[in-house]
Order: sequence, then C-alpha cells, then structure tokens
Amino acid sequence: MAKFSVLFVATMCLASLLVASADWNILNQKTKSGLKISLRNYCESWRINVELNNIREFSVVPSECTDYIGKYMSGTQFKADSEATIEECTLYLNTHCDIKKDGKDAWIFDIDDTLLSTVPFYKKHGNGGEKLNATDLEGWMAQGKATAIDYSLNFFNDIKRRGMQIILISSRKEYLRDATIDNLVDAGFHGWKSLYLRGPEDECKKVEEFKGDVRKELVKNGYRIWGILGDQWSSIKGVETGRRPFKLPNSLYYVS
Amino acid sequence: MAKFSVLFVATMCLASLLVASADWNILNQKTKSGLKISLRNYCESWRINVELNNIREFSVVPSECTDYIGKYMSGTQFKADSEATIEECTLYLNTHCDIKKDGKDAWIFDIDDTLLSTVPFYKKHGNGGEKLNATDLEGWMAQGKATAIDYSLNFFNDIKRRGMQIILISSRKEYLRDATIDNLVDAGFHGWKSLYLRGPEDECKKVEEFKGDVRKELVKNGYRIWGILGDQWSSIKGVETGRRPFKLPNSLYYVS
Repeated sequence: MAKFSVLFVATMCLASLLVASADWNILNQKTKSGLKISLRNYCESWRINVELNNIREFSVVPSECTDYIGKYMSGTQFKADSEATIEECTLYLNTHCDIKKDGKDAWIFDIDDTLLSTVPFYKKHGNGGEKLNATDLEGWMAQGKATAIDYSLNFFNDIKRRGMQIILISSRKEYLRDATIDNLVDAGFHGWKSLYLRGPEDECKKVEEFKGDVRKELVKNGYRIWGILGDQWSSIKGVETGRRPFKLPNSLYYVS
Repeated sequence: MAKFSVLFVATMCLASLLVASADWNILNQKTKSGLKISLRNYCESWRINVELNNIREFSVVPSECTDYIGKYMSGTQFKADSEATIEECTLYLNTHCDIKKDGKDAWIFDIDDTLLSTVPFYKKHGNGGEKLNATDLEGWMAQGKATAIDYSLNFFNDIKRRGMQIILISSRKEYLRDATIDNLVDAGFHGWKSLYLRGPEDECKKVEEFKGDVRKELVKNGYRIWGILGDQWSSIKGVETGRRPFKLPNSLYYVS
C-alpha cells in the first residue's frame, strides 16, 4: 500500500506538471486560415512580429498575452536573447571596426531597457497591459532606482576600454537629467561623453526624428558612429544610423 | 497488482514524455555571463537575433541548432508567425492606404520563401546546416516544383482584388525566368504586373542594392510603393522601401 501511495503521488505530480504547462499549449484557437494554435503560439507570434517591426504603434500588450510577455521579459530566454545581441556587438567590434582612437570613434546607447531596466515598473503595471501613464513612469524615473542591466554594463565598460566615445541618447525629458545621471552612476555607468535628453523644443518630434537629428549633429561634428544599441526600432532607425544598429528584444511597449 | 502495474506504466509514460521533451531543456550550457541555459534557449536566441537583423552574413545554421531550426521552419509556430505577418499587412492596407486605382498603386513581393517555399530543398540539405551549393539550388528551382505558401497566395489575391499592381523582385537569375513563371502559375500565382530577375549586369551587385535599384526605377516611373513583403532583410531594406516593409520569419539562410 505504501508503494502504491508513492506511485499514486508520483503519477499525480507528473500529471499536474503536464497539465500546468499544457494550459498554454491547448490548441483552442484558430488562425484566419483555420490553423489550430495554442495561446502560447498566438502570443509568441505577436512577440516575434513586434521584434520584426511588423506590429507597430501598439499602446498595450494584448490582454491575453500579458502573462506570457511578463514571464518572457523576466525569464531566462529574454536574458539569453539579450546577451546574444551583446555578443554580436562584440563580435562586430572585434572583426569590423578599425578604431582610430582620435576621440571621434563613437558608440550610441539608448538608456531605458538598454542600460537601465524598466521591467520592474511595467511588472507593477500589468506587464504592458495597462495603457502607459507618462506621469507615473516619469515619477518612477525621478526616484532614480532603476537597476543596471548587467550584460549592458559589461559592454558599456568594454566600449570604454576600447577608447571609444560613449554617447547616450534618450527620449527621457530634460527635467529628468539630474535623476538620470544619479541613477546611471549609482548603477555603475560612468565615463560617457555626452547625454542627450529631450528638451521642450523636441517635444513635438517623434522619437525617431529626435534621435536622428542628434546623430546628424554628431556626424556633422566629425564623429564616426560605429554602432547603436537600443531596444526600440525608433532608437536605431532613421538618418545616420551608423555602421551597425543592434536591437535588444523588448515587447513590453512601443516607442514611435 | 493489476492496479499497481497500470499506475507503474502510467508513471513511466508520463516520465518518458517529460524526459523526451527535456533533452532540449537541460540547462547544460552557460552564456558568457554564467547564465545557465538549455540548447533550446541557445538556438532560440540565435533565431531571434537573426530576425532582429543582429546576426548577419551567416553561411550556415549552427550545427547544434539545425534540428531546432528545421522543426521550427516546418512547424505550427512558423506558420502562425508568418500568418500573423500577413495579418499585419492586411490591417495596414485596411487602415493606412488610400489607394487611387490609377495603375500606379504597387505592392512588391519577393518570391522564394515569400510566395514559393524552398523549405523542402533546405530540409534535404541539412536544414541550413550545409553550405549552400548554388548549382544545386538553381537545379531545384529549374524543376519548377516549389509549392505555394498558402497564406501568401491568399494575400497575393487580396492585393489583386484591391486593384493594386503586383511587382515581383527576386534575386533568382534571369535564365530561370521561364521555370519561375511556370512554377508561379502552377502554384496559383498569376496576374502580376512585372517580374524582375537578376540579369548578368546585376551579378556583382549585392541583393539589397539590386532590389533597391529596381524600386528606384519604379518610383521614377510614377509607382507608389505601398508595401513590400519579403523574408530577408535585403529584400526590404535600402532605398525606396515604400511606406511599409514587412518581414516574414526565415532563419534557414541569409541573403546579403
């Protein structure tokens, strides 16, 4: 009877494990063509099409996918995906960049979700399922408590060691400058050359235009932009995108 | 005893199910930062970074990932991902395109793995794990047996119904014109306006440049390019990319 009970418990445990993971995997949805798919298939398709820049201008993550996206953005796969992006940056620098070290070799970084993580903020706001309240987000930024993204910090320091100039271009507003600098330094980032934030004159520009205008100015001033690292297409598209833009995954929100 | 055996078999079945799916999932690899990941994590990171256009110019799929990529490219997730791309094209057409129907509204399609599938060819050649033999691939294309991608065929017909001009731009060589036309028509595609293939004068151009030059010519001739659908970044990047490029997933090969 004891053996029987052990086996019964073992069976139930295994069964419940399968059931728990199967919730996502039940083929209870259909695409337009009639293909039977699961919720996991659906949310994964949504995510990959965000990364492909096919899905644009979304204001919230679809409500049925907030759990899925939330889990991805705070799990191993997201970290592995992002570290693989950084690996490609490093490979590119090692093989394609003939740096002159004359003070004009530049690498551009975005800040939020490139150097500092806003994932904890979005976790508290429905994993992208709540429409963004800019005041809330800016209030959170003003506290200056965002943590460093560790692989980005390593790469930031690598860029410095190579003797390149680090330029930070963020769509954060100018009034957050002090909080942003304090936060970056607290998180371990220092030694950048310039930090560009959005002043009142940039308010009516789209982020892609604002960031492109800054890059145009940099090129006019003689900088050679070897690369850009950002988590939004608007950070790495447009004019003067440098030799190689690199995109980190981020399906929590969209900045146009 | 009978009950005991049934439970034993049930337990073993569940256990072996878990073990079979666990092969991919054993955390037996480490990233540079020390993050423990599985082979699935690794191959998925490779794939997403190809789609993000961070990983470029690869000549083969990493050997440890050919099974993973082969399964993805012939499975439900790939189909769901691709159908979601087409859904976005349709949504865009319904909401953002004010078509004049004056014979100058154009949509551009790539051919291979956009309209016709080469997945069966790559399946026979190690799921992208073998370095491409262009003669083999062209021999396969010359047979004209490639099958239609069904969701793309539906979209192709939708574009026609809307009264737009369909322009096909492919990096296939000019000598494959007859075979390509026969294959397209056999597969159900007809009614395109123009079919551009690579002539001898385009041989030394990269695909992105060749396709960009064709688009420049189209714009010069008064066409309004509303969108491009392709499976390679080189089909949708460069000059005159139209109002909206859309990228289908494809991690089997890279065309630069």
